Amino acid sequence: MKIGILGTGTVGQTLGAKLLELGHGVLLGGRSATNEKAQAWAAQQGGLARAGSFEDAAVFGELVIVATLGSGTIDAVQQAGPERLAGKTVIDLTNPLDFSRGMPPTLFVGHTDSLGEQIQRALPAAHVVKTLNIVSVNQMINPASTGGEPDMLLAGNDAGAKQRVTELLQQLGWKRITDLGGIEEARVLEPLVLLWVRYGLKHNTWGHALQYMYSPAGA
Amino acid sequence: MKIGILGTGTVGQTLGAKLLELGHGVLLGGRSATNEKAQAWAAQQGGLARAGSFEDAAVFGELVIVATLGSGTIDAVQQAGPERLAGKTVIDLTNPLDFSRGMPPTLFVGHTDSLGEQIQRALPAAHVVKTLNIVSVNQMINPASTGGEPDMLLAGNDAGAKQRVTELLQQLGWKRITDLGGIEEARVLEPLVLLWVRYGLKHNTWGHALQYMYSPAGA
Repeated sequence: MKIGILGTGTVGQTLGAKLLELGHGVLLGGRSATNEKAQAWAAQQGGLARAGSFEDAAVFGELVIVATLGSGTIDAVQQAGPERLAGKTVIDLTNPLDFSRGMPPTLFVGHTDSLGEQIQRALPAAHVVKTLNIVSVNQMINPASTGGEPDMLLAGNDAGAKQRVTELLQQLGWKRITDLGGIEEARVLEPLVLLWVRYGLKHNTWGHALQYMYSPAGA
Repeated sequence: MKIGILGTGTVGQTLGAKLLELGHGVLLGGRSATNEKAQAWAAQQGGLARAGSFEDAAVFGELVIVATLGSGTIDAVQQAGPERLAGKTVIDLTNPLDFSRGMPPTLFVGHTDSLGEQIQRALPAAHVVKTLNIVSVNQMINPASTGGEPDMLLAGNDAGAKQRVTELLQQLGWKRITDLGGIEEARVLEPLVLLWVRYGLKHNTWGHALQYMYSPAGA
């Protein structure tokens, strides 16, 4: 599958490299087509790796992943272009983190709205699926690195898009995947990052992922 | 220790019975001193079990547990009386669940405030500790029923109160306990119930509890 990634940071680069390894074509897109990080990444990866702009990633991808910082996300998807993303599956793994009051962060949107819904509103004809926002990128591409089988959660309005995303998550190694419902369930997924950050700070780990434990007898 | 419980529902009754079993004295308090559920519970439990009003529970308890429905919580703590709870440790295990739009529920307070903070403001001289709100009562009193060692999280402003609550959690069987910080961290804890409910609906379990998985090599 051809996958466009919006965002040239560690998440985009690491996830992009893994997707190449899985046999996908990947275009890493930045604000400008001459983004040096994206160019260096593509040169290093070789093969099916390409670099370009947000617009290029939107055109290239049959599926597009939004992997920007929360604060730059809406600008990025607007630049990528709603019309270029119409009918496409868009994975949103961003978090609306607000560091303006220091650590630990808060959210700049929440409770009655979410960044996932903002992206869906900015891309009305795309099929936005919120997922992967509750772990760091090393766990996104290797959930077994946690020492077990953590849960992954997703939310979105389009059943076909959620099926495609589920298959991609399975390729990445996720086995316990729960569909929470429509994109408004991003209001449930995004606050989880607040706990994730706090737990990481307290336990000095950034390799943690959530698992719900239960035994049939414990119901 | 003498423990007062505000709330005579399943959570108060089940948790109260477990605390009696652990050797504590327990007064189960309802809106009126002649609450039939509390009276029946105390008669059935015998020994150190008592029934009474919210006020009675506040006077009786060296530590007081708020185990009311979210919607009735502030009324209950106001009736219990801020002056009676001054200087005492108050465990808040409530959730501000809003079922007015059907299932799954939303929260009636969140993001920039929490029910935990509202209780602390209603009881300015008490030491409110938010915890246990992220599991059902069978897991509160038996975390190992999940088949593992789930995480429990707590938040509150007073270090001594958090230490007392930690010891009580340990008596209940909790081994992985994380102190998230001040009572404002209830904003992080309360939204977790939204995921907990949705996960339970999807997987047909109400015996689940969260664990963060990580291995030292997965950082």
